[in-house]
Amino acid sequence: MSTHNIAVIPGDGIGTEVTPEGVRALQAAAQRFDIDLTFEDFDFASCDYYLTHGQMLPDDWKTTLSRFDAIFFGAVGWPEKVPDHISLWGSLLQFRREFDQYINLRPCKLMPGIKSPLADRQPGDIDFYVVRENTEGEYSSIGGKIFEGTERETVMQETVMTRTGVDRVLKYAFELAKKRPRGKLTSATKSNGISITMPYWDERVKAMHASYPEIDVDQFHIDILTANFVLHPDWFDVVVASNLFGDILSDLGPACTGTIGVAPSANINPEGAFPSLFEPVHGSAPDIAGQGIANPIGQIWCGAMMLDHLGHEDAGKAMLDAIESVLAKADPSVLTPDLKGQGTTRDLAQAIIEAI
Amino acid sequence: MSTHNIAVIPGDGIGTEVTPEGVRALQAAAQRFDIDLTFEDFDFASCDYYLTHGQMLPDDWKTTLSRFDAIFFGAVGWPEKVPDHISLWGSLLQFRREFDQYINLRPCKLMPGIKSPLADRQPGDIDFYVVRENTEGEYSSIGGKIFEGTERETVMQETVMTRTGVDRVLKYAFELAKKRPRGKLTSATKSNGISITMPYWDERVKAMHASYPEIDVDQFHIDILTANFVLHPDWFDVVVASNLFGDILSDLGPACTGTIGVAPSANINPEGAFPSLFEPVHGSAPDIAGQGIANPIGQIWCGAMMLDHLGHEDAGKAMLDAIESVLAKADPSVLTPDLKGQGTTRDLAQAIIEAI
Ligand SMILES: CC(C)[C@H](C(=O)O)[C@@H](O)C(=O)O
Ligand SMILES: CC(C)[C@H](C(=O)O)[C@@H](O)C(=O)O
Repeated sequence: MSTHNIAVIPGDGIGTEVTPEGVRALQAAAQRFDIDLTFEDFDFASCDYYLTHGQMLPDDWKTTLSRFDAIFFGAVGWPEKVPDHISLWGSLLQFRREFDQYINLRPCKLMPGIKSPLADRQPGDIDFYVVRENTEGEYSSIGGKIFEGTERETVMQETVMTRTGVDRVLKYAFELAKKRPRGKLTSATKSNGISITMPYWDERVKAMHASYPEIDVDQFHIDILTANFVLHPDWFDVVVASNLFGDILSDLGPACTGTIGVAPSANINPEGAFPSLFEPVHGSAPDIAGQGIANPIGQIWCGAMMLDHLGHEDAGKAMLDAIESVLAKADPSVLTPDLKGQGTTRDLAQAIIEAI
Repeated sequence: MSTHNIAVIPGDGIGTEVTPEGVRALQAAAQRFDIDLTFEDFDFASCDYYLTHGQMLPDDWKTTLSRFDAIFFGAVGWPEKVPDHISLWGSLLQFRREFDQYINLRPCKLMPGIKSPLADRQPGDIDFYVVRENTEGEYSSIGGKIFEGTERETVMQETVMTRTGVDRVLKYAFELAKKRPRGKLTSATKSNGISITMPYWDERVKAMHASYPEIDVDQFHIDILTANFVLHPDWFDVVVASNLFGDILSDLGPACTGTIGVAPSANINPEGAFPSLFEPVHGSAPDIAGQGIANPIGQIWCGAMMLDHLGHEDAGKAMLDAIESVLAKADPSVLTPDLKGQGTTRDLAQAIIEAI
């Protein structure tokens, strides 16, 4: 039995309240499935750390975190303390790039007991993944400004796609589609308008498809694709997208299933050369921080994805099943206020832990 | 009484079926409100024209169309005949750029009798405009490929924003917000990820806001903004966005109101230096073309927007009221199949014309 060493980074706001519950849920799953997990807590990648140290991360963060098998992350950002572009580019976006976490994976799943904003949809109807490229594309820092402060002022920013960068995310998405019952892959494009990078993306999708003839592939331009998330969410199984399009689709997807407050996300380095990072989609939520009422499901669901990633699919599934069973019971004394209950973070986590 | 000369370009597919009905509806409104309209038909900007002439437009198209006060457009594109990037870049995108139609305006409105995919929303709940920058931004043709065909292959494309380009669309959006009862403007950004052009956009929004202190301005990153279109569509009044973000939001908005098949769009040159162009959001729909069952509402609604633009707000409103009253009646013998009726294009148009 090998040991998995987990770095826990609570970050800001409700991140500090939900990560301990996520750890307890992981310990319960580890015990049941006989998995050896160790946890170590870190206080950096938080705005309070920045206020004390003048930077989001210690100089040796990369060496420190490289020793771990995965990073269990809460949430970062507290705009009243530190502007977002400092706190985010100084931590989360560093991790993604420096640890080459080139996959951002997010499930979009209609869960029992969670109200979807879409009419007439039942749990089971919507169940797909968004696979987002997480290191290049539209998020490049190449560009600048000319004729500053004049009427001629012009600003440019480059989108950069490399064959390596595009092919590896496509490969991951095709492999994921292969494991799914429907074996379907949808590519997000905009080659009718973004006339250089997007046709290239389409070309690489076509080339990669040749190695996966069994996968059913379709593609939509991002405008009508967002419309189809709302109109036909049942069409999708695995959706692969560039950094920006994936960013959009992986907020819109959980919004359509009503799970934006409880959805997890994984920043993955599939080769395991660096640790992968698991963080809930919800942010640090300064408005409800400190009250003990934050919903811990996103963090626990992240734990399920992390166990999955570490090769313990059965344990990951047990954690997700536990979440679904507690949601299906819909006991208001256990559910947190965002789910119209009167429970605390601890109450809801405890119910899930017992179900595990 | 001045005359307005309208160029009618039916284009492809159902475009040729709905534009004549749109013209009839316009004639009815013109008669009632004593407006002098003339119409002239053109067969270019269609795939059939391309197949005969080897180009989408005649060489003198710009001179020809410049004589008109507005262009009443059907739909262009028929991928089985001509690839989209040829038909679209060779016509519609030419018009937008050459006629400096820098505003793309699309209403997102919940209409009576049209099923929204969102749960628990009533007509009146959702009623906003998307104002899209229509000439620059992410739709630039600057960029290229290096190390082609090798593992090092790298593709780049530039996003270009100019102060002139950004300020004029913002000004239009602020002016529109000023005319609306709620006077609220939402800006679409992504300055936490797209770190050069998008902070510039935000900066210009702030600067323009100084001239419109009475307008209530907020901003969302595009990822959560798409989520909020689904979760809180009632929050919005006027939404202003870059070319790409506007493209996405102006498909998603009508999708949320269930009107993607009947929504209009206007490509506007506000100064009137060039004709503006009015086209329904639905495309040429090759699958139902030739059957006489296409829904003419999008085209008629375009007519309403065109009259508005030409300074006849009362006539535009009468056309829109007529559409709403026919939809509210929900007579299945009149409604087209997409609205679960058995009517033809002509039946539905006739009912609206009578209501005008
Ligand atoms: C066809 C395409 C190039 C176009 C665009 O992206 O502008 C369309 O989606 C639109 O919104 O009019
Ligand atoms: C905070 C922001 C930079 C980030 C992104 O755009 O990647 C966030 O939206 C996300 O999806 O993790």
